[in-house]
Formats: sequence, structure tokens, C-alpha cells
Amino acid sequence: MKNLVLTPGPVPVPRFVMLEMAKPIIHHRTEEFEEIFYTTTEGLKRIFQTKEEVLILASSGTGAMEAAVSNTLSKGDKALVINSGKFGERWLKICKAFGVEAIEISVEWGHAVDPIEVEKSLSENKDIKAILIQASETSTGVKHPIKEIAAMTRERDDVILIVDGISAVAVFPIEFDNWGIDILIGGSQKAFMLPPGLAFLVLSKKAWEFSKKSNLPKFYFDLEVALKNNLKKTSPWTPAITLVIGLNAVLNYFNDIGLDELYRKHSIMSEATREGFRSIGLEPFAFNNPSTALSAIMSPNNIDAGTIVKKLREQYGIIVAGGQDQAKGKIFRITHMGDVNKGDILVVIDAVENILEDIGFEFEKGLAVRTATEIFK
Amino acid sequence: MKNLVLTPGPVPVPRFVMLEMAKPIIHHRTEEFEEIFYTTTEGLKRIFQTKEEVLILASSGTGAMEAAVSNTLSKGDKALVINSGKFGERWLKICKAFGVEAIEISVEWGHAVDPIEVEKSLSENKDIKAILIQASETSTGVKHPIKEIAAMTRERDDVILIVDGISAVAVFPIEFDNWGIDILIGGSQKAFMLPPGLAFLVLSKKAWEFSKKSNLPKFYFDLEVALKNNLKKTSPWTPAITLVIGLNAVLNYFNDIGLDELYRKHSIMSEATREGFRSIGLEPFAFNNPSTALSAIMSPNNIDAGTIVKKLREQYGIIVAGGQDQAKGKIFRITHMGDVNKGDILVVIDAVENILEDIGFEFEKGLAVRTATEIFK
Repeated sequence: MKNLVLTPGPVPVPRFVMLEMAKPIIHHRTEEFEEIFYTTTEGLKRIFQTKEEVLILASSGTGAMEAAVSNTLSKGDKALVINSGKFGERWLKICKAFGVEAIEISVEWGHAVDPIEVEKSLSENKDIKAILIQASETSTGVKHPIKEIAAMTRERDDVILIVDGISAVAVFPIEFDNWGIDILIGGSQKAFMLPPGLAFLVLSKKAWEFSKKSNLPKFYFDLEVALKNNLKKTSPWTPAITLVIGLNAVLNYFNDIGLDELYRKHSIMSEATREGFRSIGLEPFAFNNPSTALSAIMSPNNIDAGTIVKKLREQYGIIVAGGQDQAKGKIFRITHMGDVNKGDILVVIDAVENILEDIGFEFEKGLAVRTATEIFK
Repeated sequence: MKNLVLTPGPVPVPRFVMLEMAKPIIHHRTEEFEEIFYTTTEGLKRIFQTKEEVLILASSGTGAMEAAVSNTLSKGDKALVINSGKFGERWLKICKAFGVEAIEISVEWGHAVDPIEVEKSLSENKDIKAILIQASETSTGVKHPIKEIAAMTRERDDVILIVDGISAVAVFPIEFDNWGIDILIGGSQKAFMLPPGLAFLVLSKKAWEFSKKSNLPKFYFDLEVALKNNLKKTSPWTPAITLVIGLNAVLNYFNDIGLDELYRKHSIMSEATREGFRSIGLEPFAFNNPSTALSAIMSPNNIDAGTIVKKLREQYGIIVAGGQDQAKGKIFRITHMGDVNKGDILVVIDAVENILEDIGFEFEKGLAVRTATEIFK
């Protein structure tokens, strides 16, 4: 049966990318692959808006999150963790695993961190070595104020800003060099609209200085080794060849349409989804700063969001994500990343309207679709 | 241009597997994927010949090598490393990165380790916690005597045997449970004939006991977390979905043909290649115990093996691997793993014969192909 996958990672992969990856395998220690690898890392530099080398890891995004910590910090170092959801929590767990002392700013789910809180914490804890944050928290659909926080860390020689941009890079503008971010992480199965299996990250000169002092053990994720190989158009270990080839195709496509157009696509889909549902009384979970990577929509009072997710799957063949942990049953989440278009958004809004009608929720039927259509126009 | 890829990793991927992976993406937190994940791990148990859980990592094989060390040993522990090539060296580097003290048995490249040497080292160093070895050293084409060494470690409660079987699992019989191996590692881009990006490993009950005492930091490669998720038919981080789907297709194929037939295929191709080249005076690099995963063939005196590799690529569109480090220029390496058949072996032997003739090497033209053909018959 044909399904419409609208989850915020993995996201639908364009047909031309799937077929590019289905071509006969090539060997990675060849000029042919090195050329692809080089073109790809150069393309990533444009997306990451940096002159620094962007590294490609054969792992999920979590591997790159670990690498960011294990390559720049040392045992007993203090890190400020902005925790506003499932992926903020992951920073805490990584710190714990590596003996890094986490100072936590716990932000209510659905809210963005207040930069003043960050400034306060930095002032109170002079020995903080790194800030760990998400640019877009996928579990809540919220964007954090990265530019404002980067303005604080770039003034300080002794603190680096590590940004999990897995649901943010290529979604909306993040200017790595200009803003002064120190590490920025991306993942293949999000806006890069590839299958999962690749992670990307870039380090600032300051972060590379930190890496010289870091004493945490690393091997597979040793970024200095990765950098040396990157400069030779290769990776230290066998790369995930087919995914890199797919990435090359995606980056060529991004080049053709332009970054602004890509950002705009996410932005308009996000607005249409949010305003569509809002028009019938379903508010976004993001209290402020909604991310354009996905829309996390709250189900109406007394209706389990899990029911909506289930009925979408069973009755309409539409796969969206539910809420995780404390957001379970409260929200459903729809991607704007990947090979999804305006029509897909209208289809899922229409299906949710039908489900709400069946359940007996009172609203003006058709208004959400109409609102979204108007925004698309 | 159509190329014939005959490198010992990546190996040619069957067309039906590539197309299976090119199907529309599915989400990993669904019953549909969980069923595939479960079938796949059950299939891996048959290949690894074990009742224990086989874990699937989104990484290259090196990630699983690191995981084996970081999950079972502690800082300052002693490990006996059998180093007979490029991948033996990798064990030394991993130990160094994690503060594990390596006691090295350095074996001449092209030779298998003598089990007596291992026994001697174990007796002399009572505090050795683990033996790190390759089942098949891809850089030299040599098999190590795993069964014999496992017989030593299974008698000892305080030593585990960690086997890099990346070029061995699904190539020739390795009985994980029966022999008493403690960790066995596989990789997708070898006999599993997939693109690179997945690693597999299994731990014995003894190895899981070791993991409880291990104090090395790990997060992405935390195997206890992976095990818990495996039992719930999932992985802790986003799995490399398309590769797992490809793996499922490969395991179904293995089921159809049977493991013995798979082993026999590698074995006969290996014999035909070795004896073919030997008949015209080109000896295998493997002095003893040749692996059936690949043939590493020494080029005749005064002929740079790199020339043969280059001419194969440029004149015949055949991609084989050269030698690495100290074997550079001395050998060329041909895979028997992956979607390659007897005809491919005849084609590469014939091409090498032509190249040798052009270079002026004296031999009975056609004899190598004829010898291989006879063995295939």
C-alpha cells in the first residue's frame, strides 16, 4: 500500500536520489569517489555557511553529538546544557557518559530558552567550557535563539558553543562563520532528505584549539583524524559510499534551487500547517519560536493525539510522529523537511479534519485546509 | 563505462538488493520496520551461529571494533593484540586511544599466527583480559586459527576473545557459540554484499559480564543500551533504515541458498584464483592459511603490482585492490565476497595474463585461466 510518510526524520527521499544510490557500487579509494567526496564536502560548506572543513561521519546524528563532546572537552569539565526536550536530554546523557559535569538550564517543553538565562548562567559559572544546545528541538518543534547565544560565546575565549542542528541545518538560515558558532551538527535523514546513516559536523578554529586540549578517549569519532583525511578528499574509515553519492545528488539539487528557496519552502509549509490547524483551534506546541523543520500540533483537549496518529496511519496511510515522553498523547508532528510538498500538507490537514469530525470535535469543517491553501497562494 | 568491481570491500551489491533499498523510505518507529529489524537480527544469529543477540550498529566496521574494546575493558587493562597486517594495527591504535595496554604478537605479513605463541603469551602474562585478533586479515589475505585460540580463552574465566570477523563472517564457518568466541564482528560491505554503513557484533555471556565491569566511556556505541533496544526490535538511535532493509533481503537470499553453499562459493573461487595464478608462477601472499574472502596475489619479481592494478582499471575496467603499506607494490587483491561469480574470476585472470604478456613476463599464456576453469568444473 502506498503510504505518505510525513515524519520529521526519516523524511521522504526524492526518487532521483534513491535511484542515484541504487547505481552499481564504486570503490572509495578511487579518484572517482574522491572527486565525489570532495564535491560533497565543498557543497556542505555552502549549506553550513562556513569556510571550515565539514566532516562526514558514518553514523546517526547522535554519533556526531558524542564526537562534539568527546573531541573538545575533558573529564570533569563543566558544560551548560540547554534542555528543552528529548534531544536536550541526550546532551545530558552524553555528558554523564563522558564524565563531563552538566549544568542544566531546564526549559519547559514547547518553549525556547531565554538568552538572558544563558548569560546569567555563564556569568555565575566562570568555568563553563561549552554550551550544548539544539538549534531546533525535534521533540517539541521549537527553535532556540542560536545567534543571540553565539554572540555571548564568541566574546569569550574559554567557552565554545556546540549546536545540534540536525533538524535545522538546511532548514533555516544558520550562519556558522558569521554568527561565531563553534560546532554545528547535521544529519542525513532530515533536510538533506536522505536515508539515515550520515552525520555532518563543522568545527571553528576555536573548537579545534579546544580539541588539542581534550583528553577524552575517541577513535572512530576522532575528528582530528577525520579532518586530515578530509583534506585528502577521503575519510579515515570506509565511508557509507551510497549515502555519500546520494548526498552529492541532493547538494546538486540544492545548488540548482538555491538555499533561499529551500528555506522559504520550509517556512511557508510551516506557516500553512500552523495557521491551518490554529484556525480550527489546534494550537502549535511551540509556545514561541516555532521551528520550520516540523510542526508539532497539540490535539484538542480530551482527544488523545495518539488516536489521531493511529487513525492517520490506518485510515489514510499517512505516517506522522506522535509526541515523546511528556508530550506523548498531547501532540502530533508533521515534517516540512524532505521530499514533501504543499499538496502533502493539504492532504494531512484534510485527513486530520476528517478524523476530528468523526471523533465529534466541533469546528468549522474545511477551514483548516482553506486557511492553508490561502497561505500557499 | 561499465566497471567490474572486484575489491575486497566494498563488493558488488546484487541488483535486487539495490532496488529493495531504493523503495520509498519507511519510518523506523513502526511495526513494519520493527518486524524487519527483528527478522534481520534473527537472520544474523544464524550467520553468526549463535543464540545470543546480534547487534546492528550504524557505523563502519571500525566502530564495532572500538565498541568491542570500550564496552568490555577498562583503562590500564592488558590486551593481547595479534598484529599481522593493517587491521591488526588498528587494534593497537584503538587500545592506545582508550588507554588499554597492548601486548603485541607481531606476525610477519602474509603469515597466520602460531597458536603456540598465543598460549605462551597468555601464560607469561596472567593479567591479560582480552585477545584482539582478525579472523581474516584483509590486507594480507590470511586466516588466523580462531578455533584453536578460542579453545584457550574458553577455559579461562578472566580472558575474552574478541574477533574482527569483518572479512570472515558469512565467508567461511565461524561457530561463535560452539567454539566459545566472546565477541565477533561483521561488516555490511563484505560477504553481506551491501554498501558500507552497517556493522554487526555479538557478545557471549562472558563478554556481557566483562561489560558490567568496564569503565571506559561510551555512549553511541554503548552495547548494553543497544542490547536493551534489540530485545524490543529496535535500535537506540535512528538506524540506517535502507541498509537494514537491504540486509533483510540479503539474509533471505542466504536462507534460500544455504550457508554451506555460500561458504563453498567463496572457497571454490578462492582455490581457482590461487591455483590459476600459481600455475603461471604468481604465488599467493598468504604463506599459510589463505582466507577464502579474497586472494592476495604477489606480482612477479620486478613487476610493480601497482602497474597491474592500474592497467586492469584503465585497460579493462576491472577494479581490484593493491597492497597497503609494506605490501604496497607487491600484491594485488581480488574479492571472492559479494555479487561476483566464476566468470568474473576468469575475466580478471585473463586480463592479468594479458597485462603480464604485454609487460614481457614469460609464462605459458592461457594456463592460469585453464587451471581456474578446471577447478570450477
